[in-house]
Amino acid sequence: MENNLVYTIGRQFGSGGRQVGRTLAKKLGIPFYDKELIALSAQESGLSEALFANADEKATSSIFYSLVMGNYPMASGALGVTEMPLNDQLFLIQCKTIKKLAETGSCVIVGRCADYILRERENVLNVFIHASLESRVERAIKVYQVDEHKAEDVCLKADKQRANFYNYYSDRKWGMCRTYDLSLDSSKIGIDGCADQIIAFGKALAEHKGQGI
Amino acid sequence: MENNLVYTIGRQFGSGGRQVGRTLAKKLGIPFYDKELIALSAQESGLSEALFANADEKATSSIFYSLVMGNYPMASGALGVTEMPLNDQLFLIQCKTIKKLAETGSCVIVGRCADYILRERENVLNVFIHASLESRVERAIKVYQVDEHKAEDVCLKADKQRANFYNYYSDRKWGMCRTYDLSLDSSKIGIDGCADQIIAFGKALAEHKGQGI
Repeated sequence: MENNLVYTIGRQFGSGGRQVGRTLAKKLGIPFYDKELIALSAQESGLSEALFANADEKATSSIFYSLVMGNYPMASGALGVTEMPLNDQLFLIQCKTIKKLAETGSCVIVGRCADYILRERENVLNVFIHASLESRVERAIKVYQVDEHKAEDVCLKADKQRANFYNYYSDRKWGMCRTYDLSLDSSKIGIDGCADQIIAFGKALAEHKGQGI
Repeated sequence: MENNLVYTIGRQFGSGGRQVGRTLAKKLGIPFYDKELIALSAQESGLSEALFANADEKATSSIFYSLVMGNYPMASGALGVTEMPLNDQLFLIQCKTIKKLAETGSCVIVGRCADYILRERENVLNVFIHASLESRVERAIKVYQVDEHKAEDVCLKADKQRANFYNYYSDRKWGMCRTYDLSLDSSKIGIDGCADQIIAFGKALAEHKGQGI
């Protein structure tokens, strides 16, 4: 029905964005990719999952830091690409994985700049899930077992890291309305409510196709 | 049904946000306030509409500018409030008007920091409408008869002015997802699609009430 629509989901830490994506995929009977992207990228490139997991949604550190840490291949890159920081090489591999997945049909992809990577594809619905800080803190403690005294800090730092990653690899701004087609406060309508709202938007998108405002 | 829900609508210039608000109000059979707020504030304060129209959604200029322009009452303010720039005084009057309207029941209010002004009220649904620059330019030319060579500039400058106004009078950021409960790209689903999506969110809000994520 949704014409091979690919749903990308950006999210604040603790907003339940991943859960929204999982629920959405289940309701629509389509594949769901979050951490699964790490295993897929590792499989396709032959590199270790640990390498991808370590770089997951992190922007490249400064060249100086990379040099000190020894992960800036100066002459001949171990991955076959020279003069490029490791995280950038891993990002390019993940780009290929995401583009390949999108080609196979409708699916849900969480984070990892998927909206930007698929910017030239038609039929992509870009969503951002956020929530009140209070409810994110509560969720971080309950779901991720974060220490209650550190929970707020963990939420804010995780968001900062996601924003850095997104803003580094794209020409858009993480968390700005105009970056997405639809953004929702999950603390107002819950996980299920968000999934239903996204499905309704997908239907409206198909009906309205190309007619403008 | 929506329990006296007040809908506030922030919007990019040319995104059709006002039209979305008008359509929403019509579908729900509730009052709609946009420029109407100017007449109401003028009526209630006894000041001229022209004064409010001139200050509409504009942040206070710098004190220096206000002094030069003669609209910074130094000793005894003509409006009964001393030592406060004119735009700030008009903003306070508009605050009262908006709060009074919200008390009378469900309605749609466009712009003017209404979401922030009503932050302590329960049952407020804060929406932001945006759209691709291309479609906003097209709309600016068609609907507002803006010169086609200036349309892009007009859109971007109007947004900057709205952001300045909003960020000056609130502690939130205009156009950021987290500022709103729901944000929608009107160029993807049209005016009617946006209105329907807002109504669906309102229903989900009432059903989910206070349950968190």
